Amino acid sequence: MSPGARSKELLSPDALEAELRRIGAERYHIHHPFHHLLHQGKLNRDQVRAWALNRYCYQAAIPLKDASIVARMDDPALRREWRERIIDHDGDQDDEGGIRRWLALTDDLGLDRPYVVSRAGALPATRFAVEAYIHFVRERTLLEAVASSLTELFSPQVISERVSGMLTGYDFISEDTLRYFNKRLTQAPRDSEFALDYVRRHALRPDQQAAVLDALRFKCDVLWAQLDALHFAYVEPGLVPPGAYDPNEDVK
Amino acid sequence: MSPGARSKELLSPDALEAELRRIGAERYHIHHPFHHLLHQGKLNRDQVRAWALNRYCYQAAIPLKDASIVARMDDPALRREWRERIIDHDGDQDDEGGIRRWLALTDDLGLDRPYVVSRAGALPATRFAVEAYIHFVRERTLLEAVASSLTELFSPQVISERVSGMLTGYDFISEDTLRYFNKRLTQAPRDSEFALDYVRRHALRPDQQAAVLDALRFKCDVLWAQLDALHFAYVEPGLVPPGAYDPNEDVK
Repeated sequence: MSPGARSKELLSPDALEAELRRIGAERYHIHHPFHHLLHQGKLNRDQVRAWALNRYCYQAAIPLKDASIVARMDDPALRREWRERIIDHDGDQDDEGGIRRWLALTDDLGLDRPYVVSRAGALPATRFAVEAYIHFVRERTLLEAVASSLTELFSPQVISERVSGMLTGYDFISEDTLRYFNKRLTQAPRDSEFALDYVRRHALRPDQQAAVLDALRFKCDVLWAQLDALHFAYVEPGLVPPGAYDPNEDVK
Repeated sequence: MSPGARSKELLSPDALEAELRRIGAERYHIHHPFHHLLHQGKLNRDQVRAWALNRYCYQAAIPLKDASIVARMDDPALRREWRERIIDHDGDQDDEGGIRRWLALTDDLGLDRPYVVSRAGALPATRFAVEAYIHFVRERTLLEAVASSLTELFSPQVISERVSGMLTGYDFISEDTLRYFNKRLTQAPRDSEFALDYVRRHALRPDQQAAVLDALRFKCDVLWAQLDALHFAYVEPGLVPPGAYDPNEDVK
């Protein structure tokens, strides 16, 4: 269902990469007003809590998404490469990995961990976007599933803006709180280089290249829609949907 | 992933129905500010176009959702009953059925039909919510899938408010434009009575009843999230996500 311009011409790998980077430059959520507010220190603690609580849903889904991709790879070498992503997020034991580091962030923000993990307070739009991502990687071609990870090409910038901005802007955030992001600064480039190389080598027909570009647009939409929903519920107009985390009602 | 209070006690069918109606009274999208604006005639033509364009995605998915439910019913009598929903939406020929009547509405609003059908201008959040609904009926139990249709218990009220409000409030809307809704005023009660009876007879354990209540909450979220996204993009703050229908740019 993901729309987008259909390229009729075969692009060179470099031209395809340039087009992917152009999509990121236009659509990556670094341009979203909620991101600007977050990294400029302009949100209050409740708004940062809402962000961390919702973003947990996305973080928690990453290994499911990556396991679905591994489950579709015939080549052991490919699987070995991609399984690193699962290990990065789940760690080797209970107090390790990206999800655990995200929970350290929500802990430090004073959110009750079982409440975060239950996703009971997450915005429905967050859950729908995250589920759309999981279903996308299961239902589309492996090439599209791999391509949908390419937002990582752009994440070092968003992460470094976010970390420096949040450390400066919020007295309730410490460097230790943000250790999730420090790891991602090295993991994301390694992962995205691999995925980009895969896409460059496997998108060899115009329809495949169009599908790859649409996959990246789709993934940008997944990230953007999450910030839309946060902005709507907690910034402007500030209408919290029924059942979602409400700073004015909820002592969680 | 749908959260909600877990009932530990077995409810009588009447108590279960009362609980379902309570959820609707609290969470049905009739209470959403965008619905109020729509039926009070307070939207401009572009905003009504955005609503009709996005809501098309939902309308178009209904027969897919219902076919997935029929595909899971072992009983021919049940399948005969439920297939009526598919017939209602698809008609017997090209110029009939609920989807066709919805396109008559978008036609009358001056939207280009191929553009509407392509869903290219729909909000990503609309697509994600609609896909969440399709996946829900495929992946959950048949009982939950049937229960998720129970928002139709509340739709006659929303439809009659919408029709009278839109006819009064908008000079670009005629009774003929809204003929989709007139049909639904008879179809929805017939469908929802059947589904309600099914749920009353098949939700016989506390866990099943809790799942049924969660299914209705989920479906209310699906409808609510669509109005959140419309409100955010086209009313307040009015930030159209990249690629979505933009009245200021798009002459469609």
